[in-house]
Amino acid sequence: MKKGIANYQIGDTFDHFLLIKTASKSVASNGKPFLSFLLSDQTGEIDAKLWEASNEDEKAFQQGELVKVSGEVGQFRNKPQLKIHSIRPSQPTDGVFPSDFIEKAPVEKEELMEKITEAIFEMKNPKIQRITRHLVKQHQEALLSYPAAVRNHHEYVSGLAHHIVSMLRLAKQIIELYPELNKDLLYAGVILHDLGKLRELSNAASPSYTTEGKLIGHIPLMMEEIRMAAEQLQIEGEEVTALQHMVLSHHGKLEWGSPRPPLIREAEVLHHIDMLDARMNMLNRALDKVGPGEFTEKIFPMEQRAFYKPTFED
Amino acid sequence: MKKGIANYQIGDTFDHFLLIKTASKSVASNGKPFLSFLLSDQTGEIDAKLWEASNEDEKAFQQGELVKVSGEVGQFRNKPQLKIHSIRPSQPTDGVFPSDFIEKAPVEKEELMEKITEAIFEMKNPKIQRITRHLVKQHQEALLSYPAAVRNHHEYVSGLAHHIVSMLRLAKQIIELYPELNKDLLYAGVILHDLGKLRELSNAASPSYTTEGKLIGHIPLMMEEIRMAAEQLQIEGEEVTALQHMVLSHHGKLEWGSPRPPLIREAEVLHHIDMLDARMNMLNRALDKVGPGEFTEKIFPMEQRAFYKPTFED
Amino acid sequence: MKKGIANYQIGDTFDHFLLIKTASKSVASNGKPFLSFLLSDQTGEIDAKLWEASNEDEKAFQQGELVKVSGEVGQFRNKPQLKIHSIRPSQPTDGVFPSDFIEKAPVEKEELMEKITEAIFEMKNPKIQRITRHLVKQHQEALLSYPAAVRNHHEYVSGLAHHIVSMLRLAKQIIELYPELNKDLLYAGVILHDLGKLRELSNAASPSYTTEGKLIGHIPLMMEEIRMAAEQLQIEGEEVTALQHMVLSHHGKLEWGSPRPPLIREAEVLHHIDMLDARMNMLNRALDKVGPGEFTEKIFPMEQRAFYKPTFED
Amino acid sequence: MKKGIANYQIGDTFDHFLLIKTASKSVASNGKPFLSFLLSDQTGEIDAKLWEASNEDEKAFQQGELVKVSGEVGQFRNKPQLKIHSIRPSQPTDGVFPSDFIEKAPVEKEELMEKITEAIFEMKNPKIQRITRHLVKQHQEALLSYPAAVRNHHEYVSGLAHHIVSMLRLAKQIIELYPELNKDLLYAGVILHDLGKLRELSNAASPSYTTEGKLIGHIPLMMEEIRMAAEQLQIEGEEVTALQHMVLSHHGKLEWGSPRPPLIREAEVLHHIDMLDARMNMLNRALDKVGPGEFTEKIFPMEQRAFYKPTFED
Amino acid sequence: MKKGIANYQIGDTFDHFLLIKTASKSVASNGKPFLSFLLSDQTGEIDAKLWEASNEDEKAFQQGELVKVSGEVGQFRNKPQLKIHSIRPSQPTDGVFPSDFIEKAPVEKEELMEKITEAIFEMKNPKIQRITRHLVKQHQEALLSYPAAVRNHHEYVSGLAHHIVSMLRLAKQIIELYPELNKDLLYAGVILHDLGKLRELSNAASPSYTTEGKLIGHIPLMMEEIRMAAEQLQIEGEEVTALQHMVLSHHGKLEWGSPRPPLIREAEVLHHIDMLDARMNMLNRALDKVGPGEFTEKIFPMEQRAFYKPTFED
Amino acid sequence: MKKGIANYQIGDTFDHFLLIKTASKSVASNGKPFLSFLLSDQTGEIDAKLWEASNEDEKAFQQGELVKVSGEVGQFRNKPQLKIHSIRPSQPTDGVFPSDFIEKAPVEKEELMEKITEAIFEMKNPKIQRITRHLVKQHQEALLSYPAAVRNHHEYVSGLAHHIVSMLRLAKQIIELYPELNKDLLYAGVILHDLGKLRELSNAASPSYTTEGKLIGHIPLMMEEIRMAAEQLQIEGEEVTALQHMVLSHHGKLEWGSPRPPLIREAEVLHHIDMLDARMNMLNRALDKVGPGEFTEKIFPMEQRAFYKPTFED
Repeated sequence: MKKGIANYQIGDTFDHFLLIKTASKSVASNGKPFLSFLLSDQTGEIDAKLWEASNEDEKAFQQGELVKVSGEVGQFRNKPQLKIHSIRPSQPTDGVFPSDFIEKAPVEKEELMEKITEAIFEMKNPKIQRITRHLVKQHQEALLSYPAAVRNHHEYVSGLAHHIVSMLRLAKQIIELYPELNKDLLYAGVILHDLGKLRELSNAASPSYTTEGKLIGHIPLMMEEIRMAAEQLQIEGEEVTALQHMVLSHHGKLEWGSPRPPLIREAEVLHHIDMLDARMNMLNRALDKVGPGEFTEKIFPMEQRAFYKPTFED
Repeated sequence: MKKGIANYQIGDTFDHFLLIKTASKSVASNGKPFLSFLLSDQTGEIDAKLWEASNEDEKAFQQGELVKVSGEVGQFRNKPQLKIHSIRPSQPTDGVFPSDFIEKAPVEKEELMEKITEAIFEMKNPKIQRITRHLVKQHQEALLSYPAAVRNHHEYVSGLAHHIVSMLRLAKQIIELYPELNKDLLYAGVILHDLGKLRELSNAASPSYTTEGKLIGHIPLMMEEIRMAAEQLQIEGEEVTALQHMVLSHHGKLEWGSPRPPLIREAEVLHHIDMLDARMNMLNRALDKVGPGEFTEKIFPMEQRAFYKPTFED
Repeated sequence: MKKGIANYQIGDTFDHFLLIKTASKSVASNGKPFLSFLLSDQTGEIDAKLWEASNEDEKAFQQGELVKVSGEVGQFRNKPQLKIHSIRPSQPTDGVFPSDFIEKAPVEKEELMEKITEAIFEMKNPKIQRITRHLVKQHQEALLSYPAAVRNHHEYVSGLAHHIVSMLRLAKQIIELYPELNKDLLYAGVILHDLGKLRELSNAASPSYTTEGKLIGHIPLMMEEIRMAAEQLQIEGEEVTALQHMVLSHHGKLEWGSPRPPLIREAEVLHHIDMLDARMNMLNRALDKVGPGEFTEKIFPMEQRAFYKPTFED
Repeated sequence: MKKGIANYQIGDTFDHFLLIKTASKSVASNGKPFLSFLLSDQTGEIDAKLWEASNEDEKAFQQGELVKVSGEVGQFRNKPQLKIHSIRPSQPTDGVFPSDFIEKAPVEKEELMEKITEAIFEMKNPKIQRITRHLVKQHQEALLSYPAAVRNHHEYVSGLAHHIVSMLRLAKQIIELYPELNKDLLYAGVILHDLGKLRELSNAASPSYTTEGKLIGHIPLMMEEIRMAAEQLQIEGEEVTALQHMVLSHHGKLEWGSPRPPLIREAEVLHHIDMLDARMNMLNRALDKVGPGEFTEKIFPMEQRAFYKPTFED
Repeated sequence: MKKGIANYQIGDTFDHFLLIKTASKSVASNGKPFLSFLLSDQTGEIDAKLWEASNEDEKAFQQGELVKVSGEVGQFRNKPQLKIHSIRPSQPTDGVFPSDFIEKAPVEKEELMEKITEAIFEMKNPKIQRITRHLVKQHQEALLSYPAAVRNHHEYVSGLAHHIVSMLRLAKQIIELYPELNKDLLYAGVILHDLGKLRELSNAASPSYTTEGKLIGHIPLMMEEIRMAAEQLQIEGEEVTALQHMVLSHHGKLEWGSPRPPLIREAEVLHHIDMLDARMNMLNRALDKVGPGEFTEKIFPMEQRAFYKPTFED
Repeated sequence: MKKGIANYQIGDTFDHFLLIKTASKSVASNGKPFLSFLLSDQTGEIDAKLWEASNEDEKAFQQGELVKVSGEVGQFRNKPQLKIHSIRPSQPTDGVFPSDFIEKAPVEKEELMEKITEAIFEMKNPKIQRITRHLVKQHQEALLSYPAAVRNHHEYVSGLAHHIVSMLRLAKQIIELYPELNKDLLYAGVILHDLGKLRELSNAASPSYTTEGKLIGHIPLMMEEIRMAAEQLQIEGEEVTALQHMVLSHHGKLEWGSPRPPLIREAEVLHHIDMLDARMNMLNRALDKVGPGEFTEKIFPMEQRAFYKPTFED
């Protein structure tokens, strides 16, 4: 048996557990209903069809269910598709758990938390430090489990914390190269910039946008959180405005959703670090799927470019 | 003596009081210092030069001073310019006051406040009503004296309240035509949409941008104010999010500074009412300066268009 | 039996009359021909398939035919689709008429005409009044039956007149708020601005673009109509140019098809009224299809935004 | 004495006749009035100043006057400027005429008219031929004297006819290379495309925009002319629509003022011919002013490019 | 038997040779594999399906194979589709050759070469002439067989040479009209501008992009070729830079892939000639497929416009 | 005496040596010629006027001359301007040298060269290493003295090498964080990406664009250099193409002058490193000129933003 759905090929037979990520019912051209699934494990996803599905099937096989599936890997519109021969819900006795079928950051939560704590500990400006610590503590559990985005980059459990920690490492190095940077402001910006996603998205495992997320968005939501933290901690002063500005401006341009572009040196750097780490994450995941001498799929948020993996080595 | 600087022409002699709106020192090509002023009364403004100015002149004639000026109206680069023969600070015995030399809304503050209060009184949803009333009360004095903008439209004392009241009348009529609109939400949006300018701008009479105004901007500042009002009034619920969305989205597009475009029907209407009233204000002021058969100056925020005043009547 | 196709759901059985809006023949993957229909009544539309269709079927069931259909409502690509069990052309004895199956404005033609006539009657400038009356009279029948557009807004029988009358009400209110506006010019602009669509579109019930409509467009076509009306009525003067400008500029921007942007105050207002009424019509129709707490489908001509219907009331 | 103002250099003394193209009065920093002129002859233009000008000077030296000037060629902001020592109006006995001081096309009017007549004569489709001949005859005098534009390209007397004839030659060659083109339609498009400028501009010698030109523009004005010509000649049919489309679409894009892009093959070609000939005219005039190995000034309507004149020959 | 696949209609029976342009395997909804082909002859292309295909079929029927096919012309998604009844590889004894099934320029290679040689022969500047001749000679075979593009225009065997020769004819005429143009530079630009495609594309018959083509592109590749030719011929001087500039700038704008816009007069003309000839080729091919009074399909690289074929003649 | 022109204020008397960066002659409104200078030392620049200049003055005081100047610092259009009382060319006996009056990188050439050599030494891929070493050696002298740009960032002597070394440090750190990056390719890209400027610009001290620089640009010029180096070293393979791609794509977008966007992971990173280091250099230099609580001047190449220097410390 192969390890993980990502390693199966057209023509292979499959017989293992998978998690139902999405499920929908349609009617075939012969008038019979069928179910379309997106099934996943930690290695990847596959489309699947259950033909001539009954009403019971529809009720049994819904989003979030863990199922035992056997079938054959075919192809539809140039993508692999699993034709299901048999399918059943998982049993307690199967000893499998949904959390084992969800992609996670390659680093443990404890380690991620430790790195964030270290960065806060290094801060010297007490106002910046207290606001940052307060907000991290308040949202700690969600912060350690949420993805950084619904799709595109770091879109896995603990993805947000993974992104933050990766950016902190970048920030640390850049501060060494450009010592004129204010470390406290930059570290705080890195840690807080996307925390608004904890209100923008509904949950960590299969996140969707909340009403608040759609109508307000994570950037203004986080700005508000900083203000309320400052109120609660009775902190006043330009540090609050500067922290809010870091968050507000981190998308870099008005048309990308920042109501102000970066107007403080550290805000400019934050925008670049965010972009660089997000793009490295996307690029690495796309390049992992191809061999030397091949081009990746078009990467939508990178202007739909397809990247090349060279054939030579360094 | 003519009434108001706006009525003087090239060649006229001038001898009256004016307010110094801006003052700056330069050095002429003959090496002698001179002062450049922008002088104003309620009817308008004029550039002025005081040649061979002494250090005492520089100290005496600063922004905000009321001065008695005599001189001759000349022309420089197609614009009138006052060549100053004599100038002196106003004396208490002159019986003139700076507030008489500043442009104001054509409606009194009391009447403006009454109209806003009426609109709040008409609201039925208690959450929307309480938040709106709270914020108006909290900022009442500034709200009644601030301009709606530093330049472009309603850029005079009480301009913001004048703009709000004019928009309320528009909103009232539009609600009659489209009764499906939620009156409370639309009225509250009209009243609150630009209140953030009270923090974005420094003062009512000769406003400039605050640091907070430049780094955050009036839209996110007002969103924050709504949240804090709700906290203080212990109000929760979708009304708060909806009010915040009204404010956030009223510029209509991301590239115009709204981090979200209008996504609620009343937010879409608010954007149109705001634009229409601002444009009518700009257009009327520009058309007042030209005669039938003439084109106005290019109006910068209206895509630099020059508008035509027809020669026929209705 | 349910009232209207819009009220049927997946799984329902249908047995009633419908109008064929479009019909086309294809070949199924089993090599057999089938017919695809878009069927409608006054409440809405549904896709439908007639499998294994004969040549006689193809001839009998064409666009514009009224048919009796029985079948089952299924689903295809997330949209309802009617699987036809039996279908026959309507008979005179059925007592049904195509005009009963077409969506219409919610106001009668007579009332619409009355409102337009009233507006013309109010005009004081005889040149503007005579040109407007002449063009309305000349095109009266089509004006009262055409839609305002092929899709997007007011896309139903009498939609154009409905749009005009709604805009006239808006114009009336706006003139009261801004009395400096020239009522005659604005009313005439409202009435004439889209009359060119009577030449741009082929007919009222199932309109498509004419060659003239595609090569010239309704804006220049209407400009030409105004000139010819003026010639016929032997009217000269700036009023003719101003009326032409109102029509030419009402799309607001060159890239939206207006060869001139609005350069007269009333033309600017006309553009805003047109946009506001069109958007309210689109928004209302989209929001009618969803419940509180839901988002509409993406509205294509409103920058693809999905709008939210709040859960609270005023 | 040098031939023509274009051949004078900084430091030269000037003593000859020039035409006043523009005149305006200003006040110098010493408080004394002076007159600023733009003076021209057939070879070019020069800025000039008459210091300490009297009221009599102001009346005597107005736009359109021919004057005898002596002075010295200096420099102001990197441009030559004539410092006037003495100036007087020309006398009948001077034997000089304003028309000798205006730039003209390098081809005589008679020859231009002949070429246009030839092209009309070659047409076979009687509808296209009659409409074209009618409009040329109707506007013949203006057509032969107007410039093609106020500035940028062919901005001299007879410039429009010069541009048309040059485009006719291009059209003739292109038809030979692509014989599938409809010669009648293309020739008519070339001849008619800019005739609307005869209404858009006020006169041939020192043209400015008419009110009609500003509010409607030459493209819709010409479309109207074609319709009225067709009415008068009682011509109907697709030819009229096609001719109108040629004119409407010749700017190529909506944002360049064409309410429709080219949708007929000949309209596409017309757009390219127009652009190529206009650009060659601009390029040649700019390159004539520089030597080998130099770059021209930035050419505004060619995306502000500065062009290089190579040092080698063919 | 009809001549060429382009002349077959829905319902026709087909029994003839065709070339496999593309082949791919899929699985039908009944779980059985099938092959999808794009088959072609010199007159055009058709989609085709071979249902229930065996592994042998998959191996036998690959891209580039010539096959004998019998089947019936059906329809799928509004496009003709050939349902294959029987198919076999062509035999030597069939006397058919792949080259007879590929679309070619309507002019013979010898004639194309002759025209290019003539143009080189006319050049007077020895540096330009030698570099051009060298590069043509070096790439002669590919130059005469490559298409001008993978799709859009001149996308057939010898398309590049056909495009060059057509542009040379245009250039010749334009030089006659504007004799100030440097013929050598323009001719050389026409001949060399797209030669980089010989490295950008993999081969002449069914071209795809090379890695070098994707990572560098034909414009910089050709710039490099000119430099290397100059090195080899020991030619120095501005002519080399000018030739490189002609190639670099011929797409006209940075966003269209030219790292410099045209900055030499002949480069500007080259860009226009290239665009005009490419567009005439696209337009003619699209208009050939429709009748008078019809619109073409949307032409993607011409801003998706659909062109109209008028009903009248010249 | 103050140290350096940057430290003088309005009203100060100046008496020291300065370098003439630019010189031009004009005529004053009194008809007398004067000379305008841009004078500089290592700390900055100042505009200066020499009134009533003689022909001898014009010849003596040209660009590149070192002069002794005494005068007074005045103000013109809000900028300091030196009114020259006396001026003379420097004498050998003055013991001053032009090179002491030019801004330089804050690091010595030897140290910069060492860092570049180290990076080359670290490379493992012999093809990449040899090409990079070859090009650095070939251009070593210019590489160590040229600025990175004519203006905007690193616009001082040795600016290019300073920029490269700063980017190498960034690259080193980023490779540690993302070890999947190919170090050789990234280092080579950093070192080579702007070497084309050595041909684009005329010289190190007061650089202007060469004809080749204007017509071709540094990006294609460097691509050519890589090819020629490979030819000379007889190196073939994908490494050459990849190096060329690094250079070609480093501006990131077609509209910024890269004919290809980054399509290799290291090219994407190179673009970000280049942008980050250039922006830090611009930001630091602008922020150095203002105090806490102030905004910088608008920084043109950073979208004209004015940056804020916070008042708090970390």
